[in-house]
Amino acid sequence: MTDEFELIRRYFSVLTPRGGDVLRGPGDDCALLRPPPDRELAVSIDTLVEDVHFPAATAAGDIGWKSLACGLSDLAAAGAQPAWCLLSLTCPAVDEAWLAAFADGFGALANREGVTLAGGDMSRGGLSITVQVAGYVERGRELTRSGAQVGDGVFVSGWPGRAAAGLARRLASTDSAGDPLVEALNRPQPRTALGQRLAAAGATACIDVSDGLAADLGHILAASGVGAGLDAAALPITPELAAAGSAEQVRAWVLGGGDDYELCFTGPDDLDAERLTATDGVAVTRIGRITGGGGLQLVEPDGSRSASADHAGYRHFGP
Amino acid sequence: MTDEFELIRRYFSVLTPRGGDVLRGPGDDCALLRPPPDRELAVSIDTLVEDVHFPAATAAGDIGWKSLACGLSDLAAAGAQPAWCLLSLTCPAVDEAWLAAFADGFGALANREGVTLAGGDMSRGGLSITVQVAGYVERGRELTRSGAQVGDGVFVSGWPGRAAAGLARRLASTDSAGDPLVEALNRPQPRTALGQRLAAAGATACIDVSDGLAADLGHILAASGVGAGLDAAALPITPELAAAGSAEQVRAWVLGGGDDYELCFTGPDDLDAERLTATDGVAVTRIGRITGGGGLQLVEPDGSRSASADHAGYRHFGP
Repeated sequence: MTDEFELIRRYFSVLTPRGGDVLRGPGDDCALLRPPPDRELAVSIDTLVEDVHFPAATAAGDIGWKSLACGLSDLAAAGAQPAWCLLSLTCPAVDEAWLAAFADGFGALANREGVTLAGGDMSRGGLSITVQVAGYVERGRELTRSGAQVGDGVFVSGWPGRAAAGLARRLASTDSAGDPLVEALNRPQPRTALGQRLAAAGATACIDVSDGLAADLGHILAASGVGAGLDAAALPITPELAAAGSAEQVRAWVLGGGDDYELCFTGPDDLDAERLTATDGVAVTRIGRITGGGGLQLVEPDGSRSASADHAGYRHFGP
Repeated sequence: MTDEFELIRRYFSVLTPRGGDVLRGPGDDCALLRPPPDRELAVSIDTLVEDVHFPAATAAGDIGWKSLACGLSDLAAAGAQPAWCLLSLTCPAVDEAWLAAFADGFGALANREGVTLAGGDMSRGGLSITVQVAGYVERGRELTRSGAQVGDGVFVSGWPGRAAAGLARRLASTDSAGDPLVEALNRPQPRTALGQRLAAAGATACIDVSDGLAADLGHILAASGVGAGLDAAALPITPELAAAGSAEQVRAWVLGGGDDYELCFTGPDDLDAERLTATDGVAVTRIGRITGGGGLQLVEPDGSRSASADHAGYRHFGP
């Protein structure tokens, strides 16, 4: 008599903390929330599909973690504090061990970030996970893609490219446990605390790096009507990443690799990246400058420039 | 150069009305909302999977309509006024004619119900549609499954069973255009206006009939800790439905067929169903009474009783 109602109760109803804004959680037709009246509500929805967003052999716990991390990263990019989420899980059959592991991974991140699972849905079908997240942001403190100004600095958190390098390593070997690059792929760390501090720090535009640094910065440039020059020598690269491939390959990962869920943002050129780094424990690096036009250019130490079109990022239906 | 960003812009960004609560719609990491401070927020998420929730040959416009209708029906069951939604669309390839037709069906219902599409996501994969809906409900006016009282009447809107009969006809013949039963399957009418009036009319519990009348009423009984007797002779059956199969088959559709998205609710036995019917233009029928226990019993005109366990409704992972 195992059905989806019982499964949802068993694995998901008691998974996460209960926010004071959640009047009614899972188990009815709708969840019922009372958002704080002095905040704006930021929401996003993301679907992860097996063999598109993650390899079929990915551990269930990592899939659970990642399916929530994607949405939290969107909240981070908007400067919002995570609050609650809805989960719609589609899977081919009932595998209780898989469900328990998925719920563990999802719940671990939800608990760390204080996110209540307020409701959900479960269907039969090819493995696919949709998470809708909601967070709160003080009025006037929300970040968008469209505020970058000529002369602003361009900044990035952490070390984009690690997840792409981790994926390459993962696909080459099944024995990748403990590899920090594979860990970056499987357990991305949404920069929610940093995101909430950025508006106060003077950030003018922000996006999370889900499709690739060049592609996502490109979205800021398009939305803001500006260009940018990236300082090739300033791109942050961890020793593990530097050792994972040729210099050319590493650069392709840093500029074109998706799935890192770092934040790329713009702000005053003298924005105190070191202070942000110290407060948050995650490196913030100034990697370039907003220009009046010219798209996205990569500037080498010798002053030579190249367009970044080779690093277009992941597109689901692109050419 | 057609990619998901361009597709989302082309088909979905300008699809729906723009609510005053929507500060920022599609195109950024998050949508930004300002819910009315004196209302509670009701939310739900539903996924429709091809060949599970609808036959593969279903017209794109019908899929678009239905994927929003499911969520709106949840809002109706909670007594909430529809406000905005998020759409995550997963499809195997870019078929622009299909997308345009899907958007037309989705947009037709969204416009009728005043729902803003505030954001979304698009992925490559087997056809599957997830819609998250949000609505507002006055404090204390929200409906749940758990308030049914012994002695309450049991009521249902419209004519459950039509969608199941329509599915049977649809599977038997491709030439079913204009058939009201197939129309009930493809273009279900979420009872949002009725749902918003139910709390004021004295309703004590409510659910939408997505899995089947007996199964969904069973959820009310379980959540409220009560039983019910359904008056077999009172079950509403349209002439088209009565003519669509044997008496036994018709009863199986009425009690066990899902996908109608009618409302089943409880309230004072003398609740004025006729007045609700007149106000809303959709029939409201008293079909039984809440009892102290005994599960769900079907009471025949001769007074004989049978359990309704044969009409357990659709379960994704059931036995």
